[in-house]
Amino acid sequence: MKTPLYPIDIALREDLGAGDLTSEFFVAPNLRAHARIVANEAAIIAGAETAAEVFRRVDPATQVRIVAGDGTAVNPRDNVIEFDGTARALLTAERVALNFLQRLSGIATLTRKFVEAAASDHARIIDTRKTTPGLRALEKAAVIAGGGANHRFGLFDMVLVKDNHLAACAGWRDFANAIRRARGERPGVQIEVEADNLEQVRELLQIDGIDVILLDNMKPAQIREAVALGKGKTKFEASGGVTLKNIRQIAASGVDFISIGALTHSARAIDLSLEFTHVGA
Amino acid sequence: MKTPLYPIDIALREDLGAGDLTSEFFVAPNLRAHARIVANEAAIIAGAETAAEVFRRVDPATQVRIVAGDGTAVNPRDNVIEFDGTARALLTAERVALNFLQRLSGIATLTRKFVEAAASDHARIIDTRKTTPGLRALEKAAVIAGGGANHRFGLFDMVLVKDNHLAACAGWRDFANAIRRARGERPGVQIEVEADNLEQVRELLQIDGIDVILLDNMKPAQIREAVALGKGKTKFEASGGVTLKNIRQIAASGVDFISIGALTHSARAIDLSLEFTHVGA
Amino acid sequence: MKTPLYPIDIALREDLGAGDLTSEFFVAPNLRAHARIVANEAAIIAGAETAAEVFRRVDPATQVRIVAGDGTAVNPRDNVIEFDGTARALLTAERVALNFLQRLSGIATLTRKFVEAAASDHARIIDTRKTTPGLRALEKAAVIAGGGANHRFGLFDMVLVKDNHLAACAGWRDFANAIRRARGERPGVQIEVEADNLEQVRELLQIDGIDVILLDNMKPAQIREAVALGKGKTKFEASGGVTLKNIRQIAASGVDFISIGALTHSARAIDLSLEFTHVGA
Amino acid sequence: MKTPLYPIDIALREDLGAGDLTSEFFVAPNLRAHARIVANEAAIIAGAETAAEVFRRVDPATQVRIVAGDGTAVNPRDNVIEFDGTARALLTAERVALNFLQRLSGIATLTRKFVEAAASDHARIIDTRKTTPGLRALEKAAVIAGGGANHRFGLFDMVLVKDNHLAACAGWRDFANAIRRARGERPGVQIEVEADNLEQVRELLQIDGIDVILLDNMKPAQIREAVALGKGKTKFEASGGVTLKNIRQIAASGVDFISIGALTHSARAIDLSLEFTHVGA
Amino acid sequence: MKTPLYPIDIALREDLGAGDLTSEFFVAPNLRAHARIVANEAAIIAGAETAAEVFRRVDPATQVRIVAGDGTAVNPRDNVIEFDGTARALLTAERVALNFLQRLSGIATLTRKFVEAAASDHARIIDTRKTTPGLRALEKAAVIAGGGANHRFGLFDMVLVKDNHLAACAGWRDFANAIRRARGERPGVQIEVEADNLEQVRELLQIDGIDVILLDNMKPAQIREAVALGKGKTKFEASGGVTLKNIRQIAASGVDFISIGALTHSARAIDLSLEFTHVGA
Amino acid sequence: MKTPLYPIDIALREDLGAGDLTSEFFVAPNLRAHARIVANEAAIIAGAETAAEVFRRVDPATQVRIVAGDGTAVNPRDNVIEFDGTARALLTAERVALNFLQRLSGIATLTRKFVEAAASDHARIIDTRKTTPGLRALEKAAVIAGGGANHRFGLFDMVLVKDNHLAACAGWRDFANAIRRARGERPGVQIEVEADNLEQVRELLQIDGIDVILLDNMKPAQIREAVALGKGKTKFEASGGVTLKNIRQIAASGVDFISIGALTHSARAIDLSLEFTHVGA
Repeated sequence: MKTPLYPIDIALREDLGAGDLTSEFFVAPNLRAHARIVANEAAIIAGAETAAEVFRRVDPATQVRIVAGDGTAVNPRDNVIEFDGTARALLTAERVALNFLQRLSGIATLTRKFVEAAASDHARIIDTRKTTPGLRALEKAAVIAGGGANHRFGLFDMVLVKDNHLAACAGWRDFANAIRRARGERPGVQIEVEADNLEQVRELLQIDGIDVILLDNMKPAQIREAVALGKGKTKFEASGGVTLKNIRQIAASGVDFISIGALTHSARAIDLSLEFTHVGA
Repeated sequence: MKTPLYPIDIALREDLGAGDLTSEFFVAPNLRAHARIVANEAAIIAGAETAAEVFRRVDPATQVRIVAGDGTAVNPRDNVIEFDGTARALLTAERVALNFLQRLSGIATLTRKFVEAAASDHARIIDTRKTTPGLRALEKAAVIAGGGANHRFGLFDMVLVKDNHLAACAGWRDFANAIRRARGERPGVQIEVEADNLEQVRELLQIDGIDVILLDNMKPAQIREAVALGKGKTKFEASGGVTLKNIRQIAASGVDFISIGALTHSARAIDLSLEFTHVGA
Repeated sequence: MKTPLYPIDIALREDLGAGDLTSEFFVAPNLRAHARIVANEAAIIAGAETAAEVFRRVDPATQVRIVAGDGTAVNPRDNVIEFDGTARALLTAERVALNFLQRLSGIATLTRKFVEAAASDHARIIDTRKTTPGLRALEKAAVIAGGGANHRFGLFDMVLVKDNHLAACAGWRDFANAIRRARGERPGVQIEVEADNLEQVRELLQIDGIDVILLDNMKPAQIREAVALGKGKTKFEASGGVTLKNIRQIAASGVDFISIGALTHSARAIDLSLEFTHVGA
Repeated sequence: MKTPLYPIDIALREDLGAGDLTSEFFVAPNLRAHARIVANEAAIIAGAETAAEVFRRVDPATQVRIVAGDGTAVNPRDNVIEFDGTARALLTAERVALNFLQRLSGIATLTRKFVEAAASDHARIIDTRKTTPGLRALEKAAVIAGGGANHRFGLFDMVLVKDNHLAACAGWRDFANAIRRARGERPGVQIEVEADNLEQVRELLQIDGIDVILLDNMKPAQIREAVALGKGKTKFEASGGVTLKNIRQIAASGVDFISIGALTHSARAIDLSLEFTHVGA
Repeated sequence: MKTPLYPIDIALREDLGAGDLTSEFFVAPNLRAHARIVANEAAIIAGAETAAEVFRRVDPATQVRIVAGDGTAVNPRDNVIEFDGTARALLTAERVALNFLQRLSGIATLTRKFVEAAASDHARIIDTRKTTPGLRALEKAAVIAGGGANHRFGLFDMVLVKDNHLAACAGWRDFANAIRRARGERPGVQIEVEADNLEQVRELLQIDGIDVILLDNMKPAQIREAVALGKGKTKFEASGGVTLKNIRQIAASGVDFISIGALTHSARAIDLSLEFTHVGA
Repeated sequence: MKTPLYPIDIALREDLGAGDLTSEFFVAPNLRAHARIVANEAAIIAGAETAAEVFRRVDPATQVRIVAGDGTAVNPRDNVIEFDGTARALLTAERVALNFLQRLSGIATLTRKFVEAAASDHARIIDTRKTTPGLRALEKAAVIAGGGANHRFGLFDMVLVKDNHLAACAGWRDFANAIRRARGERPGVQIEVEADNLEQVRELLQIDGIDVILLDNMKPAQIREAVALGKGKTKFEASGGVTLKNIRQIAASGVDFISIGALTHSARAIDLSLEFTHVGA
């Protein structure tokens, strides 16, 4: 029950509609085949179990063997998943399975690059809520496969007060009361507040009950200064404008988390393809 | 009924779960706000109606005005959508709406670049089935917003015989029979067949009932030759390895369609944000 | 994944609600039975796989063997499907399975009659969108089982411009522009236009991009004349007022397709029943 | 909440898929129209509210006025429903709405014929579970619109012991015990038992707790004799082989109910159409 | 198909969301375990099959053996269900399964107490529609497991005219007409009417077509008098203010049914727990 | 979007099925009424918005005014919600709305009793996952309405390591590694571990990364000792065997949270009823 299954069903319904016309006319129903999904470039795999499940949904009798599970680094021509089933079922499932696997592996691969570029034992590379509508759980698992960690899953499992929320509060006293009430009614939930400059950081450090301060779009020097101010009292997350070039400097600032929207909203799909290795009775 | 609505519901459920904790504690329920979605870079907009609908779903009383509809080119600081509603509803809807709008505008913007690079009155830039699971209809509309055209919507509305299908046929006679049967049972459906080299193109040109030949991963010179062979008898689609650099040459070959998977599987999200312009009673 | 399964689930939920009261009280849970669905009149079978699936849904352990698959002609007392399972599961599934099988076989049988009455190698007998709400894919498969072919599946996979659409266009130039735009944005989609008289046929023949002209409610003589006018440039579909008596004459006019709403909206259910051949341990 | 709405949603999704291509290209989005659904033959209307709702679903702003509600007799050229809305919305909803209305009116019309042919103050004409999968509630309402009455809605709201159930019981004592248990655990539920001959009727009349005896496929003379045997102790339903010719004789036998599967499984669709009465700004 | 399955799916989704974090981090995926659900107090079991199904849903490979099925009386330390599966699957399913089993066994246990306190061969203890939203079918099955019987399942399967409905009728003639119409259109449906005093009972006894009179909140003496008035003509249900103390007296009044809302709306959960009996390879 | 709406839809479908027979036959469709939900005993209200929404779902035109919102204390005969709508809509919605409101108010009322009995400024009364399947979000909101706080919402938003999880770990080192990994991959998630005795508490206090220790079924004296050992390093939750009698003593031990399953699994429904105050045109 770990993989949320509804995206698979939706994707299959979207692609199949009233049936796979081509297989119906061009592929004999009982023709069997061996096939494999193979990498056409170096990548970190994510979504292997989801892709495997797509094939099982189309035909529960298909034999599926995952060769390179989530988090595995593959090289060009490496096998990722191997199949044995009817040619029809394999061809019908192919595109939907690859759509999941290529996208999720793209996220894992990009995450790995950021993790390696950060080169930090302390700072964790984390995702955001800037995920593809409908695929959040899968994409967050892909970030972990790439060596990153997960920020909140949604609006429901963490408090994150941003500038627009602050604008909606009637002053700091009102804000501090809200923090207290949130702490009281939802004691197990982490509270994070965004700061846009050092002045706001100082203000926030005087209020009890804040677990993490989000340093939004600050320069590495400012981030270093903010961390110095609050070290030990609260944790810090850096966010905004993080690239493979500047992440090492940001990580070196002592920040606890670096969140990167691009991990999920702008990763490039990995080139993977399904190849038949044997067709026939 | 044109926009398929289920992705909106799924995305909202995924993000909201048991509720928006932050707004609940930090934003008074009746506080009203004006806000706008603004572009932070030049782009072609797509998904404006979907983003607008996200806000209406969260609170049907929210006033939403689309300033830059699908297909519109925007510049940095241009308004895309304007809102008037409770601050809570706007904050709760923000991320999900932007997740749609940024991704879909990314697709439209990339499509426009390919269309302009092709610089052809004849060759149409078309998408593929390499779309995000669950978002196909929206992404295909984004391709049109960018000036492209749509290939088939799924396995159900067109026959597209690829190499793996051919491998599953017992020879050309078997294949020609299948074409005939497809034509007979589904006369309104277009039939396209993939060719990997000129020899296959010649073979296919001798079989009746093929509407389009897909030239897979061929060089521009080969494409030109293929088109010369079959002009008037069938249409041609070029596919594989198309870039902003080589598309002009491919378009000039006389091909009818150029399909590009990257339009939907690897577009970068456009930078858009929600700004409050007024908060208060 | 070929049969769309949701109608089965809906039909079972509708019939079972909170459970099969009669079986619960009158049939021991472990009592086993052999049974068969038998034809009580001559018919062409359609929906056999759907009926079989109903039984498997109610109890996946039920053994089901289809004796007369879709498209098979059966005579009175012929077996269609044979079962081995618990008596409870068979009795619970019986009515829903028969409701599908009787209706779909009715469609296949009526289609076969029209195909035989048309006695044409050229003209294809096709269905319409006048199908039972929720059962379109199954009913269109039944038409094929009867030897017919399928018109468009819905509003989404073909353009069909009817008189009411024409009334909504601002003249022929507007109309021709719309044809051109449809061709451009959806190149893989067939375009058909309705004509009510020969004058309209002539008008349409001067516009590029029309694949099929629908001759609505025309007499055989007019149909023949229309076909003569457009042969080679476009295809023709005859529609309206087609009966088993006049279809031969219509088919002889040279028309490519004859569409008949009655195939799906007014077919009579075939008389089929479930018989127990053995009950007991 | 009276009309079960899911069949409308399913039917619209099935027909619209990714959108109404024709209206999109050929009808301006803001063009308004007046239209009406008109009868092309005499009929009893059923499903008017469902058809109206289809139009409202496609566009909630459409004005819909039902002229001939369920149970109304209409003549050729009579209006059934009148509309005022955008031409697009009316054209998109047309086919789905008519598919419901034509089928349901067909059922009501056929029911009315049987009711009139029975010419009985006592015997009620009732339906069966031989309904279209997914449309049972709507079809049973159509039977009432035609002047008939409803048998059980499904397996859950009444006990109906048929020959196959009896075959599964280990003798009459077992059967009588099951009746007693059903009475005890579900006291509000009616119990009916099928009899195939007079001997079985006599047997059943000696068992307590049976509300109705179903006389299956008996001749009118036998039915009369059965009714005479049990009058006052139980009610009787005649079933099987009922036609417009013999129903009067069956009704005259004193039976309480006459059930007819053909009402729902073999009614012919009524000829109704949508006509535009005005198009334009 | 007897157990309505959607509450299981909903409950699992609600509890699992994006996954069982604890098992994921603390329990090796392949670790196997034996476990059992054990009673910590005396109880009547209900919901065993539902609880078993929860485990099977989480992992279809889990072996589940029901030791004490629905209706069984258990003592402290008795086993109810035994399991053999992966430790992860058992821990993930535990809480949801117990939530069903404890609640439903609470209902069965309370029902049994009322049945025993009534000490009547004649009066049946029945439930009401005061059930937990979403769990009605399961809770009504629990009442039967406890020895009670079921009142109507919903608004759809029985007519029950209450004081508010009477207030909405324009006098007794109007009311009698409505009874007649209900009888005519839905002959298989039972009709019950509420009476608040003896005068109303007398009024109702003069109207044909009433199957049961509901004596609402009457004293035992009044109930006895009402029963005496209508014995043989109609059945009687007592309702309101029924306790374990007064139920014997009410049952002795000759009433046919005693309905008790508390059976389902206020039963206490039974103390049951999952214990691991063996963990390891 | 705060109230999760699916339980309302499920509950209405479950109760209405194919329609409200009684209202259909006994209440004129246009008859209007004023009504109110009134308390028949003292209580804390919860679920008012959900109950109100039930009425709006049945008929969006119904006017609903919440008089006593969530968290309000009411006395016998106090109004909770007032309505103005058609008599039919009010009668159809009545039972489902009350089923929600009575149950949720029962939870709020019981919570309030525990909060008052604890008489502590420090210790928070919190709920568990022992909620009604399908109603968790509503029941947790009811706990807050009663003055309590919420423990985790499900398996997905917090780590809670229980005895069975510990039994599945291969020793303390394995366990400490798992804590570290959970911290790393899901930094925003709280980690709680169960201890059954003081020895385990001491063990846990030596491991980094534990936010809360759950003291399961310990005596108040032991709880006090545990708290003394770990004060400042971690928080403590007491659980198991908490009653209105002993909660004050437990709260006085210095524990941070007291969790009580009975709040949601064994609360008694509050007596509330719908009364018509005016019926007629």
